[in-house]
Amino acid sequence: MAERLGIGLVGQGFMGRAHSNAWGQAARFFDLSLRPSLVQVVARNRETLPRFAERFGWQGWGGSLRSLVQNPEVDLVDIGTPNQLHASQALAALAAGKHVACEKPLARNLEEARVLRRAARKAAKRGVRSYVWFNYRRCPAIGLAYQLMREGRLGRIQEVRACYLQSWGGPETPMSWRFDRSKAGSGAHGDLNAHLVDLVRFLTGEELVRVEGAAARSFVRERSLPGARGKAKTKARSNVDELFAFFAGLSGGGLCSFEASRVASGRLNHNCLELYGTKGAFRFDLEKMNVLEFFDARLPRREQGFRRILATEAEHPWVASWWPEGHLLGYEHSFVNMAADICRELAGEEPEVPLPSFEDGYRVQAVLDAALRSARGEGKVRVRL
Amino acid sequence: MAERLGIGLVGQGFMGRAHSNAWGQAARFFDLSLRPSLVQVVARNRETLPRFAERFGWQGWGGSLRSLVQNPEVDLVDIGTPNQLHASQALAALAAGKHVACEKPLARNLEEARVLRRAARKAAKRGVRSYVWFNYRRCPAIGLAYQLMREGRLGRIQEVRACYLQSWGGPETPMSWRFDRSKAGSGAHGDLNAHLVDLVRFLTGEELVRVEGAAARSFVRERSLPGARGKAKTKARSNVDELFAFFAGLSGGGLCSFEASRVASGRLNHNCLELYGTKGAFRFDLEKMNVLEFFDARLPRREQGFRRILATEAEHPWVASWWPEGHLLGYEHSFVNMAADICRELAGEEPEVPLPSFEDGYRVQAVLDAALRSARGEGKVRVRL
Amino acid sequence: MAERLGIGLVGQGFMGRAHSNAWGQAARFFDLSLRPSLVQVVARNRETLPRFAERFGWQGWGGSLRSLVQNPEVDLVDIGTPNQLHASQALAALAAGKHVACEKPLARNLEEARVLRRAARKAAKRGVRSYVWFNYRRCPAIGLAYQLMREGRLGRIQEVRACYLQSWGGPETPMSWRFDRSKAGSGAHGDLNAHLVDLVRFLTGEELVRVEGAAARSFVRERSLPGARGKAKTKARSNVDELFAFFAGLSGGGLCSFEASRVASGRLNHNCLELYGTKGAFRFDLEKMNVLEFFDARLPRREQGFRRILATEAEHPWVASWWPEGHLLGYEHSFVNMAADICRELAGEEPEVPLPSFEDGYRVQAVLDAALRSARGEGKVRVRL
Amino acid sequence: MAERLGIGLVGQGFMGRAHSNAWGQAARFFDLSLRPSLVQVVARNRETLPRFAERFGWQGWGGSLRSLVQNPEVDLVDIGTPNQLHASQALAALAAGKHVACEKPLARNLEEARVLRRAARKAAKRGVRSYVWFNYRRCPAIGLAYQLMREGRLGRIQEVRACYLQSWGGPETPMSWRFDRSKAGSGAHGDLNAHLVDLVRFLTGEELVRVEGAAARSFVRERSLPGARGKAKTKARSNVDELFAFFAGLSGGGLCSFEASRVASGRLNHNCLELYGTKGAFRFDLEKMNVLEFFDARLPRREQGFRRILATEAEHPWVASWWPEGHLLGYEHSFVNMAADICRELAGEEPEVPLPSFEDGYRVQAVLDAALRSARGEGKVRVRL
Repeated sequence: MAERLGIGLVGQGFMGRAHSNAWGQAARFFDLSLRPSLVQVVARNRETLPRFAERFGWQGWGGSLRSLVQNPEVDLVDIGTPNQLHASQALAALAAGKHVACEKPLARNLEEARVLRRAARKAAKRGVRSYVWFNYRRCPAIGLAYQLMREGRLGRIQEVRACYLQSWGGPETPMSWRFDRSKAGSGAHGDLNAHLVDLVRFLTGEELVRVEGAAARSFVRERSLPGARGKAKTKARSNVDELFAFFAGLSGGGLCSFEASRVASGRLNHNCLELYGTKGAFRFDLEKMNVLEFFDARLPRREQGFRRILATEAEHPWVASWWPEGHLLGYEHSFVNMAADICRELAGEEPEVPLPSFEDGYRVQAVLDAALRSARGEGKVRVRL
Repeated sequence: MAERLGIGLVGQGFMGRAHSNAWGQAARFFDLSLRPSLVQVVARNRETLPRFAERFGWQGWGGSLRSLVQNPEVDLVDIGTPNQLHASQALAALAAGKHVACEKPLARNLEEARVLRRAARKAAKRGVRSYVWFNYRRCPAIGLAYQLMREGRLGRIQEVRACYLQSWGGPETPMSWRFDRSKAGSGAHGDLNAHLVDLVRFLTGEELVRVEGAAARSFVRERSLPGARGKAKTKARSNVDELFAFFAGLSGGGLCSFEASRVASGRLNHNCLELYGTKGAFRFDLEKMNVLEFFDARLPRREQGFRRILATEAEHPWVASWWPEGHLLGYEHSFVNMAADICRELAGEEPEVPLPSFEDGYRVQAVLDAALRSARGEGKVRVRL
Repeated sequence: MAERLGIGLVGQGFMGRAHSNAWGQAARFFDLSLRPSLVQVVARNRETLPRFAERFGWQGWGGSLRSLVQNPEVDLVDIGTPNQLHASQALAALAAGKHVACEKPLARNLEEARVLRRAARKAAKRGVRSYVWFNYRRCPAIGLAYQLMREGRLGRIQEVRACYLQSWGGPETPMSWRFDRSKAGSGAHGDLNAHLVDLVRFLTGEELVRVEGAAARSFVRERSLPGARGKAKTKARSNVDELFAFFAGLSGGGLCSFEASRVASGRLNHNCLELYGTKGAFRFDLEKMNVLEFFDARLPRREQGFRRILATEAEHPWVASWWPEGHLLGYEHSFVNMAADICRELAGEEPEVPLPSFEDGYRVQAVLDAALRSARGEGKVRVRL
Repeated sequence: MAERLGIGLVGQGFMGRAHSNAWGQAARFFDLSLRPSLVQVVARNRETLPRFAERFGWQGWGGSLRSLVQNPEVDLVDIGTPNQLHASQALAALAAGKHVACEKPLARNLEEARVLRRAARKAAKRGVRSYVWFNYRRCPAIGLAYQLMREGRLGRIQEVRACYLQSWGGPETPMSWRFDRSKAGSGAHGDLNAHLVDLVRFLTGEELVRVEGAAARSFVRERSLPGARGKAKTKARSNVDELFAFFAGLSGGGLCSFEASRVASGRLNHNCLELYGTKGAFRFDLEKMNVLEFFDARLPRREQGFRRILATEAEHPWVASWWPEGHLLGYEHSFVNMAADICRELAGEEPEVPLPSFEDGYRVQAVLDAALRSARGEGKVRVRL
């Protein structure tokens, strides 16, 4: 009989659903010696919470964050709240000796991230683990890319092109915390470039050491307030970037370009990575997330070309726990795969592919921070790793 | 509080998992007035069953098929067994007054299918419903195609190209019931062309009235028996087609070509449909299952082209119950969407997109049967609808 | 100084232009020991001929076919006329001892093709060569496929899917010789399936020995006569197929499906071949004619996938005579490459890739003929090779 | 009878061939009232020149540049030489009152470009025209994009992503003028970003007013000298960038990212543009140069998607002069289309799509120059238009 990992979740929004599903499906589809048990969920809106909890199989619901972090049956606190709450909630959980899995980005700014890293390091000495939900590491196509890279199949990385393009940031989208800098920290930058920076560090195994240029745009200055009909104030100030691009140098000498956008008409979730090395190249696009394109420069020139690998085989990471070959996985599976790997790591097994920690979360934030300073006119900016 | 639809499942293999997941996720992700409740699962291998049942949340497990169909808490019997068991199990369930959802193909041959249709028609008079798991109807991209077609966007259909290509049928694949004609009925034909025929009937809204030519190939004559080491008999006869192609005429005058293969190197799950009408065209490929390609011949000629619609928006069928725009769904979601629609229909709501019944299952079988006769040398063969 | 190959051309339409350009560009871009010289062009419309001839650099123009085949400076007669003229013109040229390059299809029917084959065989004894303009053999991507196939990279061919889909055959297209069976022989079948049959024979190196089923459709029965305004007769009977599909067996045991269409909305020139062998697969699409997709089943399973080879490198056939790597060629280059290879062969050099002869033209016709008979109800029909 | 435009060409290399072909094919395929006549070609290597001239139909060859610019039969001097010769040759031609068509980039640096602009402006007063061979403006897919943009189909441009990626810049490629900064001016930047900057200015109709960040990389420091075997010096210094990326602001407020590379493994000629506006988006990739991808945000949301327009129809610019619908054009056709348009403009007809002048060449150079200064550490740099 498998042992249980008690999960306590904060949040019932988009991420609350994704995380709830992740723990539940991990228990259903993966062979785990330590199985997640959905102990308690807390959230601000207490009206909708019971139904949410009942649907996803949470054994308990309601109560304060404090009740959660002090619940003796909770081993891991999972944070699925807006960015401005990450720091205080994670600190409370770590202080209570709970493992933490925090939604990305880890923090609104580098100062918050530094405090969290410090707390995580301290907790680690007592065996407490911290994770950031950089879920895209756990798309099988990305997992495969990681393995091929580790085996040297790309050679030395010289050029990386990373963009994450969406299109929902136009003036017709109403106000939310995501458009308020005091809550979100930044706009497309913190939201989307965070994913890219994590993936580039993860895949290359290198650090981004210097931002070499950055530029941003905000096209929308105010947005309608949802449910504002008849009220005095119907508009709110939107003060984050909708478009943010920067260059950064890799510790191995390569150059990366990053671009995050919420105004790229026609792009829904175009998280697209291109890595060019001396021996090969990769291309990945989240809109075709089951596919890794791989160029192998060691093949005879006559037959070289980008190869479209459908990463749906038992040979690919995580796939054997799902369906037979050729059956696509979707967005949510990246969360399930991560939940399963957290269970494995906490059971003392090493996952095939490393999990993102608060240390990773901090380093991502350090790159984002340097980029913000560069965009404000500081030019070339060293990343404070 | 929602009412419950008691589900009883037969089978714990690939389809047993897919169906178990479908009922569970439907309850978690969809707003249903009649919610599925996983009452009982039965299966041949009793050793593995408790663990299977516990994982997927089945309240009871074990017992005979008889115990299942007579379980008063079971409202619907879900059949996820090999083809040779479909008929007897479905008849038992219908006789007991249970709704039935049977895995495709409905039967091994037309005679079995006719018996099942008759039983389903009879049961229908008592309000009992029958379904066949033609799950691909419920990919959002296919659902969108259905809607556009109904609105006349393709005009009159003149040409359909449908293929379902896989590659696991080589001599290295060991023996299983799928390669034994007495159990499976046929090979790639019944397995894969069944899906294609259902989709073509469903999308066009027309019947396939005549098979106009057919050809088949069997490349592998014997296969190794799994676990045969040290035994006297280590090989078994493989006597089904690996490749089966046919032409069929639509009631509206168009011509369809079908091709099912298990020897198409490089194709994993290439269920690919092309429909050409007088006003437009569609292309769908299950390996890119979130995408519908749509050609609209009514646009100015200068700007005509196949449009790659990522069917991941709230405007697309079933998507609003899942994730925000641009987040891909996978293989299993087609089953979940179908489970949810069955719950809706049994609650008296009409689903957006019609569900496949035993009548549909019979008609698919009638086309497959005519194709088999054509391949055996009968030439042009009328379909016995 | 290179020697000259005197060319005499019949025709100034679409093919007249393509062939004129071919001989001229071959002389400009290829290093040839025997260089084409544009000696004389004849055509029915004498009004437009001088301008046509002057543009493309024909040294002489006008006169009868007889004057052309008897012109002592003409070494090769190039036939770019409608199908009903191929036979008489080719026979006249062969009788006069001239090499012949005839536009495809070689003939309207098998009887004509047989007469032409006989004449070509007879002429061959006197050193006279005959060619059919199956130009697509000379797309570099197809040339590469030919080479890889010869090296055994695909193993034994089990399944071939070949289609050639266009969309200009709707009722809005006015009458022309292409819609008149007495002139064209057939519709999409002879026009488009001819190309496919040649490519399949060429690439596989096998014969198509039996047609195993065929089906056809004619959707348009009459068409407007161009320039008919004010005349008594404004419509003419259109009596060819717009859609023709058939299956044929390869001498090695594989099964091929063919489909030619002029009513596939959205397809402009979708000549698309898929070849599946025991060790690999190819996909080619004329709408992306610089690309060969190659699946290599010998690679480790984890990294298998269709490889998009851009056949624009010096390592690929004919490319070195054109531009540096990565620069696309177009439709017309296939003709130029063929013209260059004819010059080489007539100079005694063996081309990298075999040229299509009247023997090939006949065998293509034999397959088309068997398919026509099958479609008319004869069922499985042996090809009269 | 058409009048003649006497062409004098300098150069017989890659560009010499491309331009020779352009004038010849323009005369053969386009209906022109002023037809190009290949009067004289001059080049350094006099040994190979006669054969080159004879092949492409040059009436005269050899002699000095001076003889060319003073040849009374020459109306237009076409410059197809390495970058360091553009300025002196163009000035000589303008001074002699000849129209000039100069290969891109116009100059090695902004100072040279300014001198050339001044000379061109002065010459313009006497009716002398100047052109830069930004040939990609004349791919039909780009011409279509230009037309749609002019009609407002993309709305206001907010984001542009432009990259031009190649892979031939590795250490195995021997030394040439392209790797010598004193001759080429820069590496990938001047060679490839020049094309991108021209296309972005051309398509958007806006100026690039400020460079907002730039970064470069040189990975190869020395290269083998071709033909150096046995000589004392076998290596030469390679001192240009292989990778150069920058951001620039559009006059309308949008942000553009540019990236040029010769080390992008697997990319042969990946000149790829993405334009995102408030009403739609374009994507173009030179490796699929007949295709324009167009996203129209005005369509109902349910059916939005990138549309793959095969720009091979008579409705698309320049296509009607070539082949029937669906027949691809290649790289060289962009030059032919430009040659034809130059003839038209010099005949007093306005081309459908504007031709690139020395003014354009200067402005491109001004952007490249600002980017170079930004990369050297100047941060945000205003473009000196």
